[in-house]
Amino acid sequence: MTDADILLIERLADAAGAAIRPFFRARFEIETKPDASPVTQADRAAEAAIRAILEAERPQDGIIGEEYGVAREEAARIWVIDPIDGTRAFLAGRPLFGTLIALLEEDRPLLGLIDQPIARERWIGAAGRPTTFNGAPAATRACAALARAHLGTTGPYLFPEADQPGFDRLRGQVRDTIWGGDCHNYGLVASGHIDLVVEANLKLYDFAALVPVVEGAGGRMTDWAGQSLGRESDGRVIAAGDPALIEEAITALTS
Amino acid sequence: MTDADILLIERLADAAGAAIRPFFRARFEIETKPDASPVTQADRAAEAAIRAILEAERPQDGIIGEEYGVAREEAARIWVIDPIDGTRAFLAGRPLFGTLIALLEEDRPLLGLIDQPIARERWIGAAGRPTTFNGAPAATRACAALARAHLGTTGPYLFPEADQPGFDRLRGQVRDTIWGGDCHNYGLVASGHIDLVVEANLKLYDFAALVPVVEGAGGRMTDWAGQSLGRESDGRVIAAGDPALIEEAITALTS
Repeated sequence: MTDADILLIERLADAAGAAIRPFFRARFEIETKPDASPVTQADRAAEAAIRAILEAERPQDGIIGEEYGVAREEAARIWVIDPIDGTRAFLAGRPLFGTLIALLEEDRPLLGLIDQPIARERWIGAAGRPTTFNGAPAATRACAALARAHLGTTGPYLFPEADQPGFDRLRGQVRDTIWGGDCHNYGLVASGHIDLVVEANLKLYDFAALVPVVEGAGGRMTDWAGQSLGRESDGRVIAAGDPALIEEAITALTS
Repeated sequence: MTDADILLIERLADAAGAAIRPFFRARFEIETKPDASPVTQADRAAEAAIRAILEAERPQDGIIGEEYGVAREEAARIWVIDPIDGTRAFLAGRPLFGTLIALLEEDRPLLGLIDQPIARERWIGAAGRPTTFNGAPAATRACAALARAHLGTTGPYLFPEADQPGFDRLRGQVRDTIWGGDCHNYGLVASGHIDLVVEANLKLYDFAALVPVVEGAGGRMTDWAGQSLGRESDGRVIAAGDPALIEEAITALTS
């Protein structure tokens, strides 16, 4: 991962945002087929825009995209793309969905971006450097006790049945829970406004970009067993602004 | 309710927004006492700004405010104020909270405003006139069947225990549910992006402003018995972009 990759990821996000904005809050009939819905069109247009740049400028790198699948998956460097994380939020006209782009090296996310192209909020994290929010340094806040933590999670019914009791136990131990938000919640962890996000059932393209953003701001992301996240992870994630929260969260989730 | 009241409510919202913005995403320690938290300070500053204008320019009107209580509650015209609806969202740094202001005449809301001062989104509804979103007409969308409806609601655990089974039944019958959002969801109903919002446990200052906004855009708001909302309502509300949805929603909620 180089300085040039950081400059490139900004251009990828700019291209995705330009592709997405015309479809946001577009009126459509509720009977519209999924293929023709504004979010599907925006999703595809954004991923196509990102891939066109990558194919031209990083032809040897691999790509894993939510919409258009895998190219060169054995490459040492792989770009992972979720053009619109939070499709329900997008469809509802809520400016909290995001474009997620990550660069993996040896299956670990070393560079990540969360971009909200309507509110124009952009977090970039790169291993070994401070995370930025719209160009300025971002930092998580201290919160070492679950009882004082503000938890964010997208929805109460997104957990596999086996994980539900653990999540409910955790929810009962935090100070407060805010619902909805998708990837934007992880940006708010990086900026020190939310202490903890816990989710499950995520795909690689849902979580890869989040890891460098949260960790470069002073936080920590792991799976529910406390392991670092990578290509082989099972989709259960914890993001803590204060790394000291991870152990207590895992105890609540799994005991 | 006069043209002058509509001009005034815009100025009330401008004053509230100016009072709120300095506190949004202010850093604070998680141990901060509730009285000193940024949301409490913003709440009070915004309501004080609104009340100062009302006391100067509408000295005979009553006021019911979330923070500073009741003045002249027997007046024929009463302003109802929630300076920050969505305090959890505000604290989490999420630009979806809102300032709510309503004007009641004979206990019915005839003028209402939802203002999001960070994203600068403002809905105004006035009885007998089309609702506006940032000055342009807003309209709900057609959706006459629960099975096709997109439902929004702030959280899964905000319902009184007795109402929970009804809400769960409703949730099982809609096409999709989006969580979080507070008053912003009702604006999205007025603009035709969400079909239905169902909540309970709301206070007068939580729902009064929403009614003219949703109804002036072509929708309908009632309590869970199908009655129009006013000062005596019990805090259980339904907002439907398509009025034809109300009956089916009530059947799901109460049968």
